[in-house]
Amino acid sequence: MKPRMIDYSLMLVTDHCSDAAAFCSIVEKALQAGATVLQLREKTATTRDFYQLALRIKPIARQYNVPLLINDRLDIALAVDADGVHVGQEDLPVAVVRRLIGPDKILGATAATPEAAQTAEREGADYIGSGAMFPTRTKPGKPVLPMNVLAQIKQSVKVPVVAIGGITADNLLTLKNTSVDGVAIVSAIMDSADPAAATQEILSRWCK
Amino acid sequence: MKPRMIDYSLMLVTDHCSDAAAFCSIVEKALQAGATVLQLREKTATTRDFYQLALRIKPIARQYNVPLLINDRLDIALAVDADGVHVGQEDLPVAVVRRLIGPDKILGATAATPEAAQTAEREGADYIGSGAMFPTRTKPGKPVLPMNVLAQIKQSVKVPVVAIGGITADNLLTLKNTSVDGVAIVSAIMDSADPAAATQEILSRWCK
Repeated sequence: MKPRMIDYSLMLVTDHCSDAAAFCSIVEKALQAGATVLQLREKTATTRDFYQLALRIKPIARQYNVPLLINDRLDIALAVDADGVHVGQEDLPVAVVRRLIGPDKILGATAATPEAAQTAEREGADYIGSGAMFPTRTKPGKPVLPMNVLAQIKQSVKVPVVAIGGITADNLLTLKNTSVDGVAIVSAIMDSADPAAATQEILSRWCK
Repeated sequence: MKPRMIDYSLMLVTDHCSDAAAFCSIVEKALQAGATVLQLREKTATTRDFYQLALRIKPIARQYNVPLLINDRLDIALAVDADGVHVGQEDLPVAVVRRLIGPDKILGATAATPEAAQTAEREGADYIGSGAMFPTRTKPGKPVLPMNVLAQIKQSVKVPVVAIGGITADNLLTLKNTSVDGVAIVSAIMDSADPAAATQEILSRWCK
């Protein structure tokens, strides 16, 4: 899957997996309901457990033809031959990851300023993730990115920009004016009692 | 550096780095004093911090012509072009790492039974690490490996075997009967008030 052909409308970003069967079921429901990109994020598991989870998730992503990105861990991405990697400020530098994964894998990078987004684009990022747009349980205390800065980031780069952080069906329309290419969702899908319905609701509001 | 040419007599395995300057100073003293292999282990830092530490340590290892191995994290090893990787039971499988690093990098694997050691050797390990030989602060609660099992592990494989876990200048001679190829040391060097003297003492007792 070539980096430039991706539909970034709705990126599902996962949370810590405490029960692999339940976790895979939620992910599958969200992909079946139309999530367009899957980013596997696991900050507490051992390398072996993360690897085994990624091995289990990969065929689900394939089944729904959704690109599988691995958050932070290039080693896991290489080990399971994922479609790409997403790196934040505490992860490997963008240029280093691009060198190691080659030109055909997807590389996403977190940026909170237009300058950081431009640097990431120059170093090889295929898309930019920016946030947090709203207060979020996943990263408590993370500063909220002003809507006008998100709009500036979008205007500063050619690659797609995805907004992340506390986004729900109820607040996502406020992002529309920024012209970003998509929304990345964690809790509003992973913690939903009905992940399929939550995904459909977010997609229908975002894409209308 | 070819995997089969390594002197495994004294592998320095590092502990969590809370002060990079002090940490690098300890490592440098140990390498200058004769440690033969360096394994960088960092289980709590962010990926970026581990990467930056490895970048800083690499020229020190080069200066003393000591191979630099990265514990667990293939991504860090690739990012800094380390000499190899050491994997335990909670890390990526040996065969997966060997496929990703190619034939010329050093690959170590932890094994606590002759069967596990043989499997690791078959899957591409260049050496086996076995322990814990004595109770250890680094991995409290880890079961102690009986001396006769260490001897069986050594007899069961062709690749070198390195003993690890609670080894000090005072207890290392008890390992001599097992015919293992070397000792891996954490606390007895990293926590020593005089890392150079501690390294020399261990080396002189082990190699005499």
